[in-house]
Amino acid sequence: MGPIMIGSMEVKSLNAQKSLLDTLAPGKRTRLRRLLYEFGPGNGTLMLLPIDQGIEHGPRDFFPNPESKDPDYQFRLAAEAGYSALACQIGMAERYYPDYAGSVPLILKVNGKTDIPSSDNALSTCNASVEDAVRLGADAVGYTLYVGSPSQGQDLEQLRQVRQDCDRFGMPLVIWAYPRGSALDAKGGQTTFYAIDYAARMAMEMGADVVKLNLPKIDPEKDKLTPAPYNEMDVTQEEAIRQAVESAGRALVVLSGGSKISDEKVLEQTEFIMKAGGSGVIYGRNVWQRPWNDALEIVEQIKQSLLANVTRVP
Amino acid sequence: MGPIMIGSMEVKSLNAQKSLLDTLAPGKRTRLRRLLYEFGPGNGTLMLLPIDQGIEHGPRDFFPNPESKDPDYQFRLAAEAGYSALACQIGMAERYYPDYAGSVPLILKVNGKTDIPSSDNALSTCNASVEDAVRLGADAVGYTLYVGSPSQGQDLEQLRQVRQDCDRFGMPLVIWAYPRGSALDAKGGQTTFYAIDYAARMAMEMGADVVKLNLPKIDPEKDKLTPAPYNEMDVTQEEAIRQAVESAGRALVVLSGGSKISDEKVLEQTEFIMKAGGSGVIYGRNVWQRPWNDALEIVEQIKQSLLANVTRVP
Amino acid sequence: MGPIMIGSMEVKSLNAQKSLLDTLAPGKRTRLRRLLYEFGPGNGTLMLLPIDQGIEHGPRDFFPNPESKDPDYQFRLAAEAGYSALACQIGMAERYYPDYAGSVPLILKVNGKTDIPSSDNALSTCNASVEDAVRLGADAVGYTLYVGSPSQGQDLEQLRQVRQDCDRFGMPLVIWAYPRGSALDAKGGQTTFYAIDYAARMAMEMGADVVKLNLPKIDPEKDKLTPAPYNEMDVTQEEAIRQAVESAGRALVVLSGGSKISDEKVLEQTEFIMKAGGSGVIYGRNVWQRPWNDALEIVEQIKQSLLANVTRVP
Amino acid sequence: MGPIMIGSMEVKSLNAQKSLLDTLAPGKRTRLRRLLYEFGPGNGTLMLLPIDQGIEHGPRDFFPNPESKDPDYQFRLAAEAGYSALACQIGMAERYYPDYAGSVPLILKVNGKTDIPSSDNALSTCNASVEDAVRLGADAVGYTLYVGSPSQGQDLEQLRQVRQDCDRFGMPLVIWAYPRGSALDAKGGQTTFYAIDYAARMAMEMGADVVKLNLPKIDPEKDKLTPAPYNEMDVTQEEAIRQAVESAGRALVVLSGGSKISDEKVLEQTEFIMKAGGSGVIYGRNVWQRPWNDALEIVEQIKQSLLANVTRVP
Amino acid sequence: MGPIMIGSMEVKSLNAQKSLLDTLAPGKRTRLRRLLYEFGPGNGTLMLLPIDQGIEHGPRDFFPNPESKDPDYQFRLAAEAGYSALACQIGMAERYYPDYAGSVPLILKVNGKTDIPSSDNALSTCNASVEDAVRLGADAVGYTLYVGSPSQGQDLEQLRQVRQDCDRFGMPLVIWAYPRGSALDAKGGQTTFYAIDYAARMAMEMGADVVKLNLPKIDPEKDKLTPAPYNEMDVTQEEAIRQAVESAGRALVVLSGGSKISDEKVLEQTEFIMKAGGSGVIYGRNVWQRPWNDALEIVEQIKQSLLANVTRVP
Repeated sequence: MGPIMIGSMEVKSLNAQKSLLDTLAPGKRTRLRRLLYEFGPGNGTLMLLPIDQGIEHGPRDFFPNPESKDPDYQFRLAAEAGYSALACQIGMAERYYPDYAGSVPLILKVNGKTDIPSSDNALSTCNASVEDAVRLGADAVGYTLYVGSPSQGQDLEQLRQVRQDCDRFGMPLVIWAYPRGSALDAKGGQTTFYAIDYAARMAMEMGADVVKLNLPKIDPEKDKLTPAPYNEMDVTQEEAIRQAVESAGRALVVLSGGSKISDEKVLEQTEFIMKAGGSGVIYGRNVWQRPWNDALEIVEQIKQSLLANVTRVP
Repeated sequence: MGPIMIGSMEVKSLNAQKSLLDTLAPGKRTRLRRLLYEFGPGNGTLMLLPIDQGIEHGPRDFFPNPESKDPDYQFRLAAEAGYSALACQIGMAERYYPDYAGSVPLILKVNGKTDIPSSDNALSTCNASVEDAVRLGADAVGYTLYVGSPSQGQDLEQLRQVRQDCDRFGMPLVIWAYPRGSALDAKGGQTTFYAIDYAARMAMEMGADVVKLNLPKIDPEKDKLTPAPYNEMDVTQEEAIRQAVESAGRALVVLSGGSKISDEKVLEQTEFIMKAGGSGVIYGRNVWQRPWNDALEIVEQIKQSLLANVTRVP
Repeated sequence: MGPIMIGSMEVKSLNAQKSLLDTLAPGKRTRLRRLLYEFGPGNGTLMLLPIDQGIEHGPRDFFPNPESKDPDYQFRLAAEAGYSALACQIGMAERYYPDYAGSVPLILKVNGKTDIPSSDNALSTCNASVEDAVRLGADAVGYTLYVGSPSQGQDLEQLRQVRQDCDRFGMPLVIWAYPRGSALDAKGGQTTFYAIDYAARMAMEMGADVVKLNLPKIDPEKDKLTPAPYNEMDVTQEEAIRQAVESAGRALVVLSGGSKISDEKVLEQTEFIMKAGGSGVIYGRNVWQRPWNDALEIVEQIKQSLLANVTRVP
Repeated sequence: MGPIMIGSMEVKSLNAQKSLLDTLAPGKRTRLRRLLYEFGPGNGTLMLLPIDQGIEHGPRDFFPNPESKDPDYQFRLAAEAGYSALACQIGMAERYYPDYAGSVPLILKVNGKTDIPSSDNALSTCNASVEDAVRLGADAVGYTLYVGSPSQGQDLEQLRQVRQDCDRFGMPLVIWAYPRGSALDAKGGQTTFYAIDYAARMAMEMGADVVKLNLPKIDPEKDKLTPAPYNEMDVTQEEAIRQAVESAGRALVVLSGGSKISDEKVLEQTEFIMKAGGSGVIYGRNVWQRPWNDALEIVEQIKQSLLANVTRVP
Repeated sequence: MGPIMIGSMEVKSLNAQKSLLDTLAPGKRTRLRRLLYEFGPGNGTLMLLPIDQGIEHGPRDFFPNPESKDPDYQFRLAAEAGYSALACQIGMAERYYPDYAGSVPLILKVNGKTDIPSSDNALSTCNASVEDAVRLGADAVGYTLYVGSPSQGQDLEQLRQVRQDCDRFGMPLVIWAYPRGSALDAKGGQTTFYAIDYAARMAMEMGADVVKLNLPKIDPEKDKLTPAPYNEMDVTQEEAIRQAVESAGRALVVLSGGSKISDEKVLEQTEFIMKAGGSGVIYGRNVWQRPWNDALEIVEQIKQSLLANVTRVP
């Protein structure tokens, strides 16, 4: 892949990226390799199942598919449909993961919050530790970082402990990098290229091995509010993702889909993400808000799309 | 129990739930089994006596029955009437429990607060530790979580330490899951189905072994303020409880009665709670605000109702 | 002492209280017994000399008796007049107590603050530790708890460490239980029966061995602002004290006099306090704001009053 | 019970002993009370089942009753026959106790050894901790102390940590007090009154809550080798036990039977032990080296004998 | 020195003060004696050179004498002019002190702040530890306490750690006691007799060995805003200092000059300070904002004044 021109900027090819696995210490490498090659679609891709909506949004997300209210539904799905890993909070990991231990890797989300208070000053505090993850046999730790929140000081301090423990225990660190908070809202909000790009870089600099980003949305009205030169750039969504992936450096990037969309859109998006340099996807509601057989079916199609569109060696 | 229809949703039967005791580590199992089978009404039920009103409300709750001002009154009641356990704060546990040590199990409440400041930003900080509970011979630890409070970050961080210590010492964790705070008030307040359901799920995901909930109240005016789909659901109180019990997953649920009501109402409510999948009740003022003999009598009737209406294997 | 009628309530006699000393662990028992029997007036009474006005109010309290500005004045007074103990902050304990070590017991006050900021959000942070108290040979630790302050969360968390260290080292814990803060001001302020009663109970439940209370003041205007049933009760000051003493349960209660009053009033108040179930008094300015000989004289009279009016076995 | 004359010595009645439970801190009291009153024969007695022969002697003890080789046999026996507690090593507690958690109390033996090397220099090192006991929900900790062994220095040092942790966690400490070693052999061996009496006192002085002793055997040849005045005393076995029980002070004493004897002898011995001031018995091989029904039958008879011959309030 | 009359109050002579050195533990005594007798003017005086203006005010203080911008200038001055000690922050101590190690004692300032935010809520957080001071061979530790700031709670808590570490390592503690903050501004501000007097007492009670005060300024308009009896007192500046020195008890007091004044004023002030009971001076800008030779000259004159006016034995 040759250099890409965005406006007047020359962008370095992703192929120039050194492999992440080559730079990782043994424990992190051992564990992350399981997700990339031994479980899930393999071939260096990641297909992750998040099961944290119960605390992040409350039980309301389970109503479209009442079976999904029993956490066992998603755990079974993760194991039987062949995910690279599932991601959940401590209580679920302790009660529901044991039945699937060894059948599907676990990413322990160590922080979380409800969506009841406003997110002006968003902060997600730790309810579990990296040592909990080690004890439970997890293969990675997940952490939500609210980039730009007025509470970022506490957030970074807390992340420091998690990162240090990940280094100490050889545990891969997956950062959910979410731009958030009142100050950011005044600069175009959480979905601009500016915001997503900053989040990607921040996560990388804070020590992420894998960065989870939301898809940037191109909206000229909002982009005008972002700092220069973002306010004057004219990029497509694909270019925006590609740049954000680059901002994450050697860290791998997975992107998420958000609320439920059509099958076509899911597959189109997956292809798009992989072509833009993503290492995989993290789809929750788009999968488990379906009846069992439908869920298995769409997962199979996502897998095929991931494998067909790999552009990056992890 | 067959499938239950709520609106158009089919809800999984509680009988499908895996037993909690089967999933617990030995220390937690040993201790929780004592409450469920060796003390109290037994047969997998819980009849808990809370003695924390002295700090949560101040001495005013003792005025209707002045004898109750001496903590020994409630401790003696717990032991002689045959409760599954009593729950109190550290000072009472250290001074009054020794006389009843071994006669009735102790749940040490490790956090608490007065009701003097407003609860807009409710937070109950720890005044005792899980190690205190171990040292005093307690069989469980109690923690109040204010779900949705603007201070939830501190709350979850604090709970993490308690939960980890519970894991370390094999101590069952009982979470008083109370929706609370200014942000929630704007979404219908603390008694809606939405609020109680979210609290149940939150407590489970944070690692509760037993969740204490308040009874949801169906109030169309308040329900309108809750997020979709709660604002459009038309459920009875019984259905609401049943769903909240499900949201707590494998964690057992006990429900409380709040301020004093008539005997008939107490027994009716107990039956109702058990039929909706509850594992027991936690009645404080409804019991000890009565003279001694009356208290013993109502306790006996509650016991009978608990045993007659068991619907769930713990 | 027979049953006492307050309105329509019959109150249990204090004689029914189990002895505090009987329930204490050996280290606490050893040390507290020194204050109650070996030093001071003895016979289970407490006559405490507080020397913390220098930080709580600043040096202005020393102007009426300039000799008192030299801390040695109060230390010498405590030793020579035969107090049960003196209470002071760390700096004074390190510099002035050594000359009187062994002659009069020391209560190390471990927290304190100036009165310069408003007390709307009062919090007194720790400037010394229980281990400091052990090292200095103190026989008890003093802690000021601002019951009902919006900062009560931090207060209770901090007290927990102090209480646990007291348990660990066998050190008696004396809690200065002061209702305080903006929320309380809206409920009648810090001197109502409601406020003092709540403070007494709170201190007991948080693990106090001895509770220091201020005298409640009966003021119908303020009482109207307190929660039911306090707002409708018609109690005398003596009844209010008696009840607050009961709210402290097995913990002993000492009461203070506040700013300087006449000799007659001091003695009348002392008798009154003891008859209401108090275990002693804590008079500071009323004593050391006098010239040496006058101070010795009033102390002697207070001692006689304490011994003549004992109603409770510690 | 009046004074007893042994030779020319008047022996204080055991009834003069202060209650052990009254002197224990809350956690120890809670847990020990369970063994004495809530489980087993009750009424302050102890019927303990030791399951430590597998390491102390090797599997050879299981050959007389091959079913007993499966540890579940003894665990089930402890639970179904209604023992006060069972005592075993860490591996058995982790693998077999969970099925009986809460049904019968656990005493975790924290040290142990094989009988392969000679016992000239006996020392039993710790293979588990008091914290393990807490985590597993045990109600007491067991420790074997080899009184008089040339390795006693290491033994006492190790016991100190166990004892401190027992104090910290409120865990009762049961000391298996065994006279042992080459030096003792030169003074009459491990079964003399001298040796047992010394062991009882040693265990008490080291902080035992319960002391497990072997029955002294009166053997004039061996007694001659003991230090004065033991070498000149002429006591019966019952008097020897009574004195050893007194040497254990406020600690309770249980006695064991050793290798299998006839039913008559077992029951005779049980009565004898209780009349001499013992609080119970610890019979292992005498029970589980029998077929299931025979075992249940003898246990029932032992229970009756214990309850019929109580002479001491714990 | 006879008694001094202030209004109608008789003030105890400072000669009645017990020696500070006599009350110190060996490590503190060893180190402080170096400053008082082995370095600097000696004879129990202190001439301290503060070099913390770079962070407290920024580099602007160095512009009057550009040579002073190189920290080596002040370090060399401290050593060559024969100061009792210099006081600076960790970075300077690590980079510049080694060249003068042993030539002049070091006081490590462990907290500091910029003057960019307003001082309404002043708090100076620790950027170094007492252990750093030990490691660097310092002879004392400096700490800035903002007496009366709304952040005083955090300040006192932080000071507690510093004080405990000073006790642990035998390190003298010098407290810069500065009245500060919005609440104090409403009571006359930071230069009144009231404010300085309170600060002196506070520092002493918090464990200072040496207290650094600013000179009080008599301003009737401001004094009216102070609490009684300060608002009605009519004292000279000298009397105010003398009283503040007394409020510091056995702790030694040094006073500072603030911004640059004339040579005459510096010497007049030095004499004045010593006659009022001060133990020395801490002059920074008044010295190093001069060219090298002028600086050496004024230092020599200050030394002579200190030695000629000693009124207190340390």
